[in-house]
Amino acid sequence: MPRYDVLSEEAMATLEGGWRRLVSEIGIRFDCERAQARFRAAGQDVGDEGVVRFDPDFLLEQVAKAPGEFPVRGRTPERDLVFGGDQMVFGGVAGAPFVLDGDERRDGTLADLERFVQLGHTFDEIDTTGLIPCEPTDRPLDSRHLEMMYAQLTLTDKVPMAALFDGAKTADSLAMTAIVLGGDDELDRAPAVYGVSNVNSPLRYDVAMLDVMESLALRNQVTVVTPFLLMGAMAPVAIPSALVQQTAEQLAGVAYAQLVRPGAPVLLGSFLSHTDMQSGSPGFGGPESAIGLLASGQLARRFGLPWRSGGGALTSSQRPDAQAAFEGLNTMLPAFLAGANFLLHSAGWLESGLVASYTKYVLDIEAVRILREEFTPLDVTPDSLAFDAHQEVGHAGHFLGAAHTLERFRTCFYRPIAFSTANYQRWLRDGGHDAAERAGELAEDVLERYERPPLADDRLAELDEFVARRRAELGD
Amino acid sequence: MPRYDVLSEEAMATLEGGWRRLVSEIGIRFDCERAQARFRAAGQDVGDEGVVRFDPDFLLEQVAKAPGEFPVRGRTPERDLVFGGDQMVFGGVAGAPFVLDGDERRDGTLADLERFVQLGHTFDEIDTTGLIPCEPTDRPLDSRHLEMMYAQLTLTDKVPMAALFDGAKTADSLAMTAIVLGGDDELDRAPAVYGVSNVNSPLRYDVAMLDVMESLALRNQVTVVTPFLLMGAMAPVAIPSALVQQTAEQLAGVAYAQLVRPGAPVLLGSFLSHTDMQSGSPGFGGPESAIGLLASGQLARRFGLPWRSGGGALTSSQRPDAQAAFEGLNTMLPAFLAGANFLLHSAGWLESGLVASYTKYVLDIEAVRILREEFTPLDVTPDSLAFDAHQEVGHAGHFLGAAHTLERFRTCFYRPIAFSTANYQRWLRDGGHDAAERAGELAEDVLERYERPPLADDRLAELDEFVARRRAELGD
Repeated sequence: MPRYDVLSEEAMATLEGGWRRLVSEIGIRFDCERAQARFRAAGQDVGDEGVVRFDPDFLLEQVAKAPGEFPVRGRTPERDLVFGGDQMVFGGVAGAPFVLDGDERRDGTLADLERFVQLGHTFDEIDTTGLIPCEPTDRPLDSRHLEMMYAQLTLTDKVPMAALFDGAKTADSLAMTAIVLGGDDELDRAPAVYGVSNVNSPLRYDVAMLDVMESLALRNQVTVVTPFLLMGAMAPVAIPSALVQQTAEQLAGVAYAQLVRPGAPVLLGSFLSHTDMQSGSPGFGGPESAIGLLASGQLARRFGLPWRSGGGALTSSQRPDAQAAFEGLNTMLPAFLAGANFLLHSAGWLESGLVASYTKYVLDIEAVRILREEFTPLDVTPDSLAFDAHQEVGHAGHFLGAAHTLERFRTCFYRPIAFSTANYQRWLRDGGHDAAERAGELAEDVLERYERPPLADDRLAELDEFVARRRAELGD
Repeated sequence: MPRYDVLSEEAMATLEGGWRRLVSEIGIRFDCERAQARFRAAGQDVGDEGVVRFDPDFLLEQVAKAPGEFPVRGRTPERDLVFGGDQMVFGGVAGAPFVLDGDERRDGTLADLERFVQLGHTFDEIDTTGLIPCEPTDRPLDSRHLEMMYAQLTLTDKVPMAALFDGAKTADSLAMTAIVLGGDDELDRAPAVYGVSNVNSPLRYDVAMLDVMESLALRNQVTVVTPFLLMGAMAPVAIPSALVQQTAEQLAGVAYAQLVRPGAPVLLGSFLSHTDMQSGSPGFGGPESAIGLLASGQLARRFGLPWRSGGGALTSSQRPDAQAAFEGLNTMLPAFLAGANFLLHSAGWLESGLVASYTKYVLDIEAVRILREEFTPLDVTPDSLAFDAHQEVGHAGHFLGAAHTLERFRTCFYRPIAFSTANYQRWLRDGGHDAAERAGELAEDVLERYERPPLADDRLAELDEFVARRRAELGD
């Protein structure tokens, strides 16, 4: 399907002037001496407090070194992914401290995390479950990244996400992925894991995020460079201004990855929404984020790199209700229109990311299914005009029994999994449940029929050993 | 905002070949001798059972007589509307036999109808409340059209919709509108009321719908010519085929209106969705209707006439839940993208149109508000880049207290009416209500602050007299 461009060439030129001025006059601060040294060696102006003032063309030269489209290797060929081009990759919710289980909102646990990974593994619509659907608050802080990665590598064989908390934790994730793939050589052969490096917006990268990026780039693994911009907090309260800041931060991060390893695979990330000026809380799924998504995609295409939209189905709603569905679609549909290559948080995100919800997970899977169908180009051929059906039915008849219908009725329309078209009496007989109740039941069904993917005994043993050793080293 | 074109020129040409073949080889049946005579006099081939086989170019010649954009006069200048161009007109739900009031689903009454008109009157987002938000099943069948019109003309001063049941009832609506405007001359001066003529698809117009169109066209009032196509029932189970049928039916109807009165104002209507082949019920808001909307808008632009999309916020859901919000937005957002000029059923539609819901009405108003903001072109000027804000905040600060923010915080972002960004504790303190519950409460608040618009005593008396006389004539 065509991309939907919302910015004129004039607007694009204004924004380009904006990021050029921002990176050269105000610059980006890098809280890491190694990064400062790399930029200094590359001829950039590194000033007080690690503020790097860039030659804008230098940034574009670095961006040009990154691949515009690249494969990510799965554990089996059917799990292979491609980032870039017309491809869309869908990931589950990530980073929620709380879980909504039925009507109960509580701290996330490792058992919850495992169930979300199982959900993501079972649904074909999800390409990567993510490392941390919810925070396993019942596990020790220093070593829980090992348990998350262990869950992700043993409960699913989909492409894994690396830990993003600091460089050492990312390195653990890479080591564990290498074990599952059959050794370090296998990991180094091609990108097989991705990580997210969140910018400390405005205009700053801290040492943890730079170390994450370095760990990934050194081993030729994927970094999603993501400015996290809530306008009013980390960015000015004007969308064009936030777009300029986002571009400046993206390009600076991508340039760093390319200095670490030229050609390192990266995505331009975006996560642009606003702060509700009445509640002081973040707001998702409103007009600002939709416009931001459409413009961010158009900008990313200009740089020729794969683009991660903020997320699949973001919402501020506290419940999997009408607001959640509206706001979710009002982020997901613009992401489709803008040609997003990677949609993290595609399923299960609630309450501005504070809550992972089983019910919302299934509702969002329905949304992804519908939109994938919706964005499949329509095949308009003479045959598709079904003139024979009109000849058969004529005037004022109906097509229910027409030959054309009978040949196609099983597959001609989308079939929902949680949505209902049942008439009222049938719906009542089925329990009179709303969409959230049906989705919650479906989540339970899916978890019951979950099947663990195979993993060779020797690799599992090596993984167990690695985790035990690292946990001991970390004092847990 | 730019339109989103989904069909290639080649696809457009294939569809054009399709409707040309359909109108000329199979034709459209007109169950009305007056219509047959008009087409015969215009040189078209009128065969058995009133089937008119058209010269496709004749249809295009008639279409060219209709205005591409036209004003509709309101009772006061601020109620004036324009159909066509970049204008979007929003109407409320129409035609629901049932009402959902809280959790209770029951037969619609005149009191309900009046409340829906009051809601539509109060919300600025609604340009026309519609004649029949719900069916007033407690009133006599033969004369209830008079009571609906009376409610619409006395409870709101927004542009009215005429009765669409038969030509005589439409004529009553026009007479009543003329009284309110100050006499027949006032009505004849300019379009001031619109009506819908639904095609008896496939490929047939019955006498009632032709009479409605004739009544409207004779007095230079607006007809929305609307094929009502549920693929699988009234159209084949292939979107291109349904698009061809829709175009054939639209053009034949528009041609008839132009024969009645050249230059009569018309809209190309569409109402294209599918029949769920499992439940046998209609399905709304899925991928089929979204694709249908995008393609229908692109086709309508080709003919240069204003376009009515199926509806604003259609859904098959039985409750104002996540499904309802998703499906509603998945019809409304494509209608915006496709440049719809008129969105009937923009607020309150539920359960495939069988139910009018107060709660959904408010949720849909929120949706219209959000999308209107979302589809306002972004103003990208050097000033909008807020370089001064970046200079003030620098690296790693925040913008909450920046001068740029303080100057704009009241108006910089969309402010919801029913959606919430409150944090969890605040949300709990406020009652822990989901979006539907909040919207239901808001509907009650809005109805409490409803104010009846002024209507001169003599016109009201004349209206009362007209209704009393006609009710007596109709035997009620």
